[in-house]
Amino acid sequence: MLEFEKYIREIEDFPKPGVHFKDIMPLLANSAATEKCLEHLLGMVSDLSIDKVVGIESRGFFFGMLLAQRLDAGFVPIRKPGKLPYTTLKEPYLLEYGMDALEIHEDAITTGERVLLHDDVLATGGTARAACNLIENLGGKIVQCNFLIELKPLNGNQKLKKYDVKSLLKY
Amino acid sequence: MLEFEKYIREIEDFPKPGVHFKDIMPLLANSAATEKCLEHLLGMVSDLSIDKVVGIESRGFFFGMLLAQRLDAGFVPIRKPGKLPYTTLKEPYLLEYGMDALEIHEDAITTGERVLLHDDVLATGGTARAACNLIENLGGKIVQCNFLIELKPLNGNQKLKKYDVKSLLKY
Repeated sequence: MLEFEKYIREIEDFPKPGVHFKDIMPLLANSAATEKCLEHLLGMVSDLSIDKVVGIESRGFFFGMLLAQRLDAGFVPIRKPGKLPYTTLKEPYLLEYGMDALEIHEDAITTGERVLLHDDVLATGGTARAACNLIENLGGKIVQCNFLIELKPLNGNQKLKKYDVKSLLKY
Repeated sequence: MLEFEKYIREIEDFPKPGVHFKDIMPLLANSAATEKCLEHLLGMVSDLSIDKVVGIESRGFFFGMLLAQRLDAGFVPIRKPGKLPYTTLKEPYLLEYGMDALEIHEDAITTGERVLLHDDVLATGGTARAACNLIENLGGKIVQCNFLIELKPLNGNQKLKKYDVKSLLKY
């Protein structure tokens, strides 16, 4: 068990019955634990020539921003529809029931840029896969899909087979 | 004009007609400009004994996270209703038309903690004021309300008169 793991709190039945939600807020509230966690996330990135770190709304923004600054890379948010003000590319994806979509600014990544994708949790992989599609549609090269937590029974990494997927904590 | 200011893009009529939206995404996409901006934001904080940096969803998360790590403080998000998984305090606030609300985890701040509130933009001050109420209801002491951008014609600082309000860029 990594020393900061005790700061991840399990919440039962959020956001819906049957889900054991991993709450990283107690981790973020402790700067020493956040720093330790960040160092471990950085340790998973072997290729350090990253141009852009992409974080997925909203919890991917937290460590995504820190990773970007520590890697000397730009930060790019991928957001829910209607949140980004400039011209966007949009990618729909399947939810358990129905569809949702993600957007990226069309000028956020340029052809050939090396991209690290980050999110807090890899669950079914639907959002991460949609994010990868957006990055590649802009010509970005995905160097790694980087997650703080992977929920292994949900097999999200099956949707990301063609990428280097690294997760710090697996449940 | 500060050297990173050219990375803030003005978008007309977002999110609605007549609004000149300040888009900080080109700034975040450039790590050197982000670092410069962060140093200026840190320069506004004269009292460095901060326990918690509170960022308001979602654009307050970006520099909020960086400020927290640089100040060796914990980070606490204030979010829209239903997004935080644990028990929350809720604070309603007035919009131009209708009401909205913000939430904070009830254990995110403890009595007497010294808090820096951060958001990207101070507009009418409604959300910032609601955030201040949440922080004070948990017993936090607000050391500064720290903004990247202040839209002066909207007089948001009038709603924050009892606090030390600092904004890096004023329009």
